[in-house]
Amino acid sequence: MRYQVTLMFDGSRYSGWQVQENAPTVQGEVCRAARALLDDPSAAVTGCGRTDSGVHAREYVCHIESEKVLDADKIAGGMNRYLPFDISVVRARQAPPGFHARYSCVSKEYEYLIFNGAHRNPFYWKRAYFYPARRLDEERIARASEELIGSHDFRSFMASGSRIEDTVRTMYGIGVRRDGDFLKMTFCADGFLYHMVRILVGTLLEIDGGKKNESIGRILAKRDRGQAGFTAPPEGLYLNRVSYGTERSSDGSKG
Amino acid sequence: MRYQVTLMFDGSRYSGWQVQENAPTVQGEVCRAARALLDDPSAAVTGCGRTDSGVHAREYVCHIESEKVLDADKIAGGMNRYLPFDISVVRARQAPPGFHARYSCVSKEYEYLIFNGAHRNPFYWKRAYFYPARRLDEERIARASEELIGSHDFRSFMASGSRIEDTVRTMYGIGVRRDGDFLKMTFCADGFLYHMVRILVGTLLEIDGGKKNESIGRILAKRDRGQAGFTAPPEGLYLNRVSYGTERSSDGSKG
Repeated sequence: MRYQVTLMFDGSRYSGWQVQENAPTVQGEVCRAARALLDDPSAAVTGCGRTDSGVHAREYVCHIESEKVLDADKIAGGMNRYLPFDISVVRARQAPPGFHARYSCVSKEYEYLIFNGAHRNPFYWKRAYFYPARRLDEERIARASEELIGSHDFRSFMASGSRIEDTVRTMYGIGVRRDGDFLKMTFCADGFLYHMVRILVGTLLEIDGGKKNESIGRILAKRDRGQAGFTAPPEGLYLNRVSYGTERSSDGSKG
Repeated sequence: MRYQVTLMFDGSRYSGWQVQENAPTVQGEVCRAARALLDDPSAAVTGCGRTDSGVHAREYVCHIESEKVLDADKIAGGMNRYLPFDISVVRARQAPPGFHARYSCVSKEYEYLIFNGAHRNPFYWKRAYFYPARRLDEERIARASEELIGSHDFRSFMASGSRIEDTVRTMYGIGVRRDGDFLKMTFCADGFLYHMVRILVGTLLEIDGGKKNESIGRILAKRDRGQAGFTAPPEGLYLNRVSYGTERSSDGSKG
């Protein structure tokens, strides 16, 4: 039986999604909880992608594979009894035929949250990037980001050392919104390269501050990580949503 | 020199505002930071009132008394270098003549935040009352709360054992608002009795759920704690704002 499970988690205590020896991970906790609930030591958990250490999720999708059969409406509550306070199952169901948390995914939306106030906000400790240096100009950032929309080779915005060959991704939409002292940027694409959102945000901040004078379109065209800006820290990054179009099995995932 | 200092704090790690032996308190941390910054071991911190263990503040006002003189615009940043991550000075200035954080206060606004979703929200752990039992009816709660507006003897909504004599307070306004799975109630009054907001919330939830059939006006009239509902837990409570009307010294504070 395969279960499609949607999680919300505060990533600040975890070394990212993927299971590791000697470090707490979200996958490790979810796997432990699934095995305990299903009483099945071979239950396996597959995520929709890796997230970095300290990155959060409002909706992260994984699937759980087990021989045991449990009423789908007992999964969420049951898992939550075994999960720690900072990971929660918000929805669960039997996966539709052919569903795969990673390969069936057709798009993802990430949000990057900046606290742009003068003094730190205790309620967003490790949950937003604290940026007191200057007032960010949301309209200028929104304008600068427009050249990212569409299909492009995003190699300039991939962490150096990453070995992905196909670095073309399609950016469906970018939103930039101020809410008081908060600046929120959302990025929706068919897939993301390693550190892509964080490098995009760092570059947009440098363009806004006048530290970088090239347009983001020219940086994109150079296909060189060295042309882009700094990698914004993980605590501002949230996986907001993972979309599954037809829910058929597909190898169209771009990570 | 007296400084008027506005704090924001996440109260979950603290045994309330007021300094205690052998327990971490917000006042203790603020006093330690003020003495370090001002290099004055006799600097003293006076708050606008006590808050319970686990209660939060978006704006809590205190005053700091010290012989040392420091530019008011260096206080906030300076204090924040000595304060832990969950307490922050958001504003500071030289106090106007006669200002007293507690006695000059003319009204306070508290918010009570309920997370009314089916499964726990990791981002509101210890920061909202998790109430999954049933969908709360915000319109019914708003209607029930109307009888609280105005000057009343609120003894029914004071923790038993509290020794305050004058239990008359004036409720200026109550707001009840739903935002998705969150229910937010705000209470603005000239002062609050011990546990008053938490007992009001507990009573309103019992009225909404049909567990209590008496109107809140009748419970008010009985002047008996036993007639009211349960004390809602501290993690949902936020001090939102403290108002100083004329900023003259005054003994009109009602705690």
